Amino acid sequence: MLPYDASLWCTDCPADEDRTQYFRGGSMALHLAHRMEKVKASAIREILKLTQEPDIISFAGGLPAVETFPAEDLVEVSTRVLKEHGEQALQYSPTEGYPPLRRLISERMNRRLGTTVSPEDVLVTSGSQQGLDLSAKVLIDPGDIILCESPTYLGAIGAFKAYEPRFVEVETDDNGMVPSDLENKLSTLENIRFIYVIPDFQNPSGRTWSLERRQAVMELVRRFEIPIIEDCPYSEVRFEGRHLPPLKSMEGSEWVIYLGTFSKVFCPGMRMAWLAASQPVLGKIILTKQGADLHTQTLGQMQLADYLEHFDLDANIERTIQLYRRRRDVMLEKMEEFFPSSVSWTHPEGGMFLWVSLPEGLDAYEILDECLKEKVAFVPGAPFFPNGGHENTLRMNYSASDSEKIAVGVERMAGVIRRAIENLDSGGERAAS
Amino acid sequence: MLPYDASLWCTDCPADEDRTQYFRGGSMALHLAHRMEKVKASAIREILKLTQEPDIISFAGGLPAVETFPAEDLVEVSTRVLKEHGEQALQYSPTEGYPPLRRLISERMNRRLGTTVSPEDVLVTSGSQQGLDLSAKVLIDPGDIILCESPTYLGAIGAFKAYEPRFVEVETDDNGMVPSDLENKLSTLENIRFIYVIPDFQNPSGRTWSLERRQAVMELVRRFEIPIIEDCPYSEVRFEGRHLPPLKSMEGSEWVIYLGTFSKVFCPGMRMAWLAASQPVLGKIILTKQGADLHTQTLGQMQLADYLEHFDLDANIERTIQLYRRRRDVMLEKMEEFFPSSVSWTHPEGGMFLWVSLPEGLDAYEILDECLKEKVAFVPGAPFFPNGGHENTLRMNYSASDSEKIAVGVERMAGVIRRAIENLDSGGERAAS
Repeated sequence: MLPYDASLWCTDCPADEDRTQYFRGGSMALHLAHRMEKVKASAIREILKLTQEPDIISFAGGLPAVETFPAEDLVEVSTRVLKEHGEQALQYSPTEGYPPLRRLISERMNRRLGTTVSPEDVLVTSGSQQGLDLSAKVLIDPGDIILCESPTYLGAIGAFKAYEPRFVEVETDDNGMVPSDLENKLSTLENIRFIYVIPDFQNPSGRTWSLERRQAVMELVRRFEIPIIEDCPYSEVRFEGRHLPPLKSMEGSEWVIYLGTFSKVFCPGMRMAWLAASQPVLGKIILTKQGADLHTQTLGQMQLADYLEHFDLDANIERTIQLYRRRRDVMLEKMEEFFPSSVSWTHPEGGMFLWVSLPEGLDAYEILDECLKEKVAFVPGAPFFPNGGHENTLRMNYSASDSEKIAVGVERMAGVIRRAIENLDSGGERAAS
Repeated sequence: MLPYDASLWCTDCPADEDRTQYFRGGSMALHLAHRMEKVKASAIREILKLTQEPDIISFAGGLPAVETFPAEDLVEVSTRVLKEHGEQALQYSPTEGYPPLRRLISERMNRRLGTTVSPEDVLVTSGSQQGLDLSAKVLIDPGDIILCESPTYLGAIGAFKAYEPRFVEVETDDNGMVPSDLENKLSTLENIRFIYVIPDFQNPSGRTWSLERRQAVMELVRRFEIPIIEDCPYSEVRFEGRHLPPLKSMEGSEWVIYLGTFSKVFCPGMRMAWLAASQPVLGKIILTKQGADLHTQTLGQMQLADYLEHFDLDANIERTIQLYRRRRDVMLEKMEEFFPSSVSWTHPEGGMFLWVSLPEGLDAYEILDECLKEKVAFVPGAPFFPNGGHENTLRMNYSASDSEKIAVGVERMAGVIRRAIENLDSGGERAAS
């Protein structure tokens, strides 16, 4: 292999010496990998630090409600697993996952989602974040193209960036990715390696793809023979309307890398998720997982399998749905009551987020600065667009705040937005006069 | 960024079409990332599958003894954590790690190892395997050089390969890496990004670096200002002799990325490990962990912290030492008794492995084939040399088998080796005649 020479294939990055960072003390230099130019601290993580003061009403995070976590049940589960299978639960285990859990996951998918996935198609991952990372690690070389929704999930952008892709946003409306634009891009761009989508209650937009869009996109997937990552963290948390089939259940499912997780329906702190895919890509992802962390926690996998066998996860999901639906309803009602008419927002049928578009000319970062003074927080929308822009958008989370806080927080936000619009209008008048 | 063109920087890889793999059915092609040329199934994993039949005596794996796992104590720990802190234990948590655990780890390191690490220098990882992966992700571009011992840990080779480095083996003897050869390589090779070492009871060789070698290598680390990854999974499992200071406790410690783990002294199935490093490299590693899996399991971190506060880990380590020392003693005694005099092996002062050198001309893979027929297994040494060779070496594990099995297994191995040497000698005589 020839020595690495950044100048041969990358023109928009600083020269090598700029990738040299300094140890504390400042006298010693450390050379970092080229990819670290792309891996930056998430703007949202910085905002979330500001919002952790207890008196802040935060619509910024993406946390499930702690009321939905089965802590009591897990005492029983933990005790049983450790007493009956302690040696196995604390030992190394296969990279692919604990076999009974792989079986339970495939059965559950097939029963609830209409898929035809076998236990051998399932890899247990340490959160869906790991599924995103490993998929890109297997499929992406520097400069390759990922097609994604516009906006798309920030955590996926963060995972993918370590492999130095180019992101191309496909036009997206209230019904999902627009097939004509997707077809245009698949026809004209080279080195597209996969499409990344969140069809149900998308993070950040709260939008859900229509059945027709799912079918049209899968028609293109089959025609262009292109892998598609279907990220479904919220699919089971539907408040109303009928469940729509995942891409993984449709013709061409061998092209779909399905990411499912227990984080939003069980608890996120156990980092239990899965990836369902066909060979050969699944085999390659398993190999990269072996190098990345050997296997997902054995104890946690056995606890989850025991929970699925002894408790009713579906009933827990139903309780979660009731809770989040009430919170969404309060947020929508109060937005309707207090937000100015020039502001628009989505009406999610499930999940944890909704998406707000302010009048053009407003900057959500400036609005956030003012809102933080009034002890209410949200996340600006711009970081969800990998290629920038859309400074007038923002994301609001309703799963992690109770109804009273939602009502107060929305009213405070409305006041800040109203004043900003007034300033914008009077500024506009001054400019015109 | 320009389109990726493998031909610009890599001459020893197949052309692009050879990296195209086929979905089941065979009609659909999938393009894989260039790195997947390097990421192969571990030869050892395949051997381990053969050795899982219950009647096989296996010295092949690297499993801690299940007798040392604190399953009973963990019932109490789990119940307390879930009852008292259930909501927190099941929620998302910071990428850096659970703050009390970071503090407990830094205090323990400083008390037992003579380091001066602060809680902010510690990142909790999902096993040390993740520490290996993230370190290479931050530091390695394709074609960069990693200096390592000869032989070195197979799992590290596997993690690093995904980032397409060149491995350069530094001469290694019974006292550790040879400083004159290390100096020669640091002086003459370009694009060396880090040195990777396992100074205590190395996997696979069982060797321990002398104090003088530690000092000499750290002198070179300071002079050449080169990061060094010090991987210490076994350091606390010392049977005899005095504890030697880790590189992380010596002058120049800011260049040391220290990997510690609870896998060998607590249990591996919980995947609890840590990485201690200075800024800026630690900050970059934390950022890449955020993209890779958000954070290590919250529940497991809180269970471990609770265990460290309520139970005596050092006493558990002492029991582990007693057990492994007995097993090592039996293995060494029986090798002395049964192995032919032309075979040599190491005498580890701790850890889980010893290393055998057969007469030149013997192939450990062929010996393994014969041994499997007699229901005893080990791992050939060749895969532990990133650049190949050394087919006459092999690794034996003594932690996972009881004394009776060790005695029987060693005697069976000795018989196979003796016959192979006889065949070699008679073959040599035939060739000479």
